[in-house]
Amino acid sequence: MFPDDALTDDKFLMGRLRLLQPARGYRAATDPVLLAAACPARAGESVLDLGCGAGAAALCLGARVPGVVLAGLEVQPEYADLARRNSERNGMAMEVVEGDLTAMPRALRRDFDHVIANPPYYDAGGSPSPVAARDRALRVATPIAAWVAAAGARLRPGGWLTMIFATPCLPEALAALPPKLGSAMVLPLEPRSGRAPPRVILQARKGGRAAFRLLAPFTLHEGPSHDGDRESYTQAANDVLRNGADLSAAFGRDR
Amino acid sequence: MFPDDALTDDKFLMGRLRLLQPARGYRAATDPVLLAAACPARAGESVLDLGCGAGAAALCLGARVPGVVLAGLEVQPEYADLARRNSERNGMAMEVVEGDLTAMPRALRRDFDHVIANPPYYDAGGSPSPVAARDRALRVATPIAAWVAAAGARLRPGGWLTMIFATPCLPEALAALPPKLGSAMVLPLEPRSGRAPPRVILQARKGGRAAFRLLAPFTLHEGPSHDGDRESYTQAANDVLRNGADLSAAFGRDR
Repeated sequence: MFPDDALTDDKFLMGRLRLLQPARGYRAATDPVLLAAACPARAGESVLDLGCGAGAAALCLGARVPGVVLAGLEVQPEYADLARRNSERNGMAMEVVEGDLTAMPRALRRDFDHVIANPPYYDAGGSPSPVAARDRALRVATPIAAWVAAAGARLRPGGWLTMIFATPCLPEALAALPPKLGSAMVLPLEPRSGRAPPRVILQARKGGRAAFRLLAPFTLHEGPSHDGDRESYTQAANDVLRNGADLSAAFGRDR
Repeated sequence: MFPDDALTDDKFLMGRLRLLQPARGYRAATDPVLLAAACPARAGESVLDLGCGAGAAALCLGARVPGVVLAGLEVQPEYADLARRNSERNGMAMEVVEGDLTAMPRALRRDFDHVIANPPYYDAGGSPSPVAARDRALRVATPIAAWVAAAGARLRPGGWLTMIFATPCLPEALAALPPKLGSAMVLPLEPRSGRAPPRVILQARKGGRAAFRLLAPFTLHEGPSHDGDRESYTQAANDVLRNGADLSAAFGRDR
């Protein structure tokens, strides 16, 4: 477990959510918030967060959509422990199970209305991190195809997969979509208008039969370049990242 | 062969190119021009246009890059005939071979520096066209994966594939990229800023090892909606469609 003095207490969604995170190691930033905003869950529906880490995405979703039923799978015990603590201190129930998505624990072998995932980035070109936990979170060798397969296996018919990941993983993720996961849509996340999107959100529906759609990019920052320390989110990004707005409108109406 | 009174004589690239096309049936519009603009061919390099139709893409490329060595494969004899006539009347040599890309004719079984393709759209939802030639051009059953495979087989090491196709085909096209075709890039073509791109250009390099990249969209029209009969191309689209500008800058520098 992380000792308390190795943790920070961070505000998400303008303080509606507070998350204990390791001061060093994998720390949630905007990706889990965007992921939670894109998941089309409604009150009463069940959500499995694959690789839930300290719980950022699942708990952001719980804050945005009160009444969702949260579960998380996490391979690292110290992060699973944090997710449990974070669910408790935010007053949101969340079933956190330790285990590997390639050998799904029995406790989670049921159908979910939604599966969300923010797979760790595997930067093959980078140098190894000196911090073991961060290294594990960023470099775990599970290929993106295994994430997609595990998610597909846990969805009920008509259920939705929503994932956020690095754009270079897109061909592998699309190729890994099983035939039962259709109506796939990709939302590019561009840092600024006209910049190539380093990350995308992929959504697909079990049993969906609509054609693949590539959507117009969602722009995170205003202006042509980085603006020093000043926050420069677009209005739409600000609504999502601070006010907990729904991103699902970006995916269009006819799902 | 098409009788002459079934043909129209159309200007491309502000009249630098004139193409005979069937008045009814598949008619080239902007797609072959965009495809030709995206192909990074240089003078002296060889280009194979898979499914060349009446020759629009190959001849646009020849007009844009004098000195490229053009070849085309076309399954429909009446279109192959038009491609030959169009190459002659525009004073650009082009070897046009009749045949099916799934059984590459011996005459084209050599390596090319570039392969370009604008596969016919197969609109599974639409009703059959009453015009046989159009029907064939738009509905031929060759799956996009076969186009990608045929292209990959014809490229020299280091050679480039450039294809334009309907966005719903993207997952199949990416999945069909053989391991030897790397450094894949996708340029979304959006009709207007913020609209989902109905078509994309896919580029990949034989032996390329760079990570997959999704690029910022290329915007075709100005303004938020259709503007009656008035042409409303963006400056960049106008440069490409009328002035024969290079689109390859959109694919970035480091290829």
